[in-house]
Amino acid sequence: MGSHHYPAPELDVTEWIGTPHTLEGLRGKVVLIEAFQMLCPGCVRYGLPQAQKVHRAFPQVTVLGLHTVFEHHEVTGIDALKVFLSEFRLTFPVGIDRQDGGMLPVTMRKYGLEGTPSTLVIDREGGLALSHFGQLDDLALGAVLGEVIADRGEQ
Amino acid sequence: MGSHHYPAPELDVTEWIGTPHTLEGLRGKVVLIEAFQMLCPGCVRYGLPQAQKVHRAFPQVTVLGLHTVFEHHEVTGIDALKVFLSEFRLTFPVGIDRQDGGMLPVTMRKYGLEGTPSTLVIDREGGLALSHFGQLDDLALGAVLGEVIADRGEQ
Amino acid sequence: MGSHHYPAPELDVTEWIGTPHTLEGLRGKVVLIEAFQMLCPGCVRYGLPQAQKVHRAFPQVTVLGLHTVFEHHEVTGIDALKVFLSEFRLTFPVGIDRQDGGMLPVTMRKYGLEGTPSTLVIDREGGLALSHFGQLDDLALGAVLGEVIADRGEQ
Amino acid sequence: MGSHHYPAPELDVTEWIGTPHTLEGLRGKVVLIEAFQMLCPGCVRYGLPQAQKVHRAFPQVTVLGLHTVFEHHEVTGIDALKVFLSEFRLTFPVGIDRQDGGMLPVTMRKYGLEGTPSTLVIDREGGLALSHFGQLDDLALGAVLGEVIADRGEQ
Repeated sequence: MGSHHYPAPELDVTEWIGTPHTLEGLRGKVVLIEAFQMLCPGCVRYGLPQAQKVHRAFPQVTVLGLHTVFEHHEVTGIDALKVFLSEFRLTFPVGIDRQDGGMLPVTMRKYGLEGTPSTLVIDREGGLALSHFGQLDDLALGAVLGEVIADRGEQ
Repeated sequence: MGSHHYPAPELDVTEWIGTPHTLEGLRGKVVLIEAFQMLCPGCVRYGLPQAQKVHRAFPQVTVLGLHTVFEHHEVTGIDALKVFLSEFRLTFPVGIDRQDGGMLPVTMRKYGLEGTPSTLVIDREGGLALSHFGQLDDLALGAVLGEVIADRGEQ
Repeated sequence: MGSHHYPAPELDVTEWIGTPHTLEGLRGKVVLIEAFQMLCPGCVRYGLPQAQKVHRAFPQVTVLGLHTVFEHHEVTGIDALKVFLSEFRLTFPVGIDRQDGGMLPVTMRKYGLEGTPSTLVIDREGGLALSHFGQLDDLALGAVLGEVIADRGEQ
Repeated sequence: MGSHHYPAPELDVTEWIGTPHTLEGLRGKVVLIEAFQMLCPGCVRYGLPQAQKVHRAFPQVTVLGLHTVFEHHEVTGIDALKVFLSEFRLTFPVGIDRQDGGMLPVTMRKYGLEGTPSTLVIDREGGLALSHFGQLDDLALGAVLGEVIADRGEQ
């Protein structure tokens, strides 16, 4: 089933807070990526707490944050972000999406994300099983995770 | 995968409010059964609202209520139950678990339920994928549903 | 200030679960009355929990329930109500509003209540400081209680 | 009654975002001050939303924010704070508590605040009616506000 998902583009990250990851290196694992900005209310209120909850409750899922800054760059640099992650007790690795002078950072553009927070789920074959902008119900996210966790491909 | 679940015992229901169902007749479908009592606070606060939410959000899942009365029988009869279901806008079919004079009603005993609310998920082959007593996180329930929905057996 | 409130009509109650009360006997005290029906979803979800919270947090306030049944009388009699109060851990006294064959019970009519849940606050002089139908924000209810608790009249 | 409250120390603010205020200039009005730091989770989750709710629901109350930074100064300067206030739609004036090289900023020390968020309520005579550190129930805050709003002194 997972084999029918569109291939998830590789992350283009300039720096990691925590262990660095590539999607290629994570092949065979289920991955949840939370694309966020540290001063985005929806990210703080529901996107990041939900990602942290998955990180705690689903040991079979690799949870990553992706800091996709497209506004207020001057006050959301890596030093501010490190304080934010520590204060808000977010314990999964976070990559900084590459800025190349475009309006949106590179990975955000590759995925065609509409804004933050956006939640991505990537299956074991590297297919994009979910790309959701905005608040996402726990039941709905759980169902996507349950499906891709169960799907071990057609050996 | 579903084929590895323990077979779910058939429901023993004396009367239905709404369309009657048997697990045998539902083979091939994913089923969620919410075992409840109408004057049980946990049922009213989280068990039944969660079942109703699944009923609305997951058209691939057949949601049933099971009224497993083991106390206060005199004030939770079928007339009271009908009023309760209508007032609380619960729109899935509800079966009345058979009373045979034992401490617990028959289906409740067959499933070894510890109390109310209890949530049961049954896979397409009739296997019991989940039996949970008490509050159940939406993410966790979603994951079970996602897995059994995705599992179409080994053709 | 309280002296400017319209006088609250006396309760007309046929039976009490818990200690009986009259508004006349409570003169000098602040009173909160929660008018409810045991099978009314809004009562169960917010009206009664809020009344119970006031009962616990405000020792200066006498909290009473008033069972103002105007539908489904046959399944919400005193035996059912006693089970309901005990199961939902509601520990304040509850009076049964008098039925005289009218569409609404007597006290409910005297207060002109629009439905259940309705929250009434009565000041130390017996004036009606608040009559609110439906969900009531904790901040707003707290402000009314704070005002009438502080108001000790013009000695 | 308000006259019995301990006099609230004057604010020592180096800069205001929005209209500047002094407690002396606010004499005769009820004031709520939310002491916060922009990267403090409790401030973002409950302290500031509650202050904003009072700002919207109680036109008789002047709501002010006080940015009492005692850690992470380098990433919570006024430019970052302006972005934060705008993103989180906080519309009341915010003063920056004076830094004099001490461990805590000056106004925070004068009030003996234990941390952030802290909620202060000041009555019409400039008395400190409430100083609360941490999460504060809406019912309890409402009761304090209701009391000081009602108290017009002994003319």
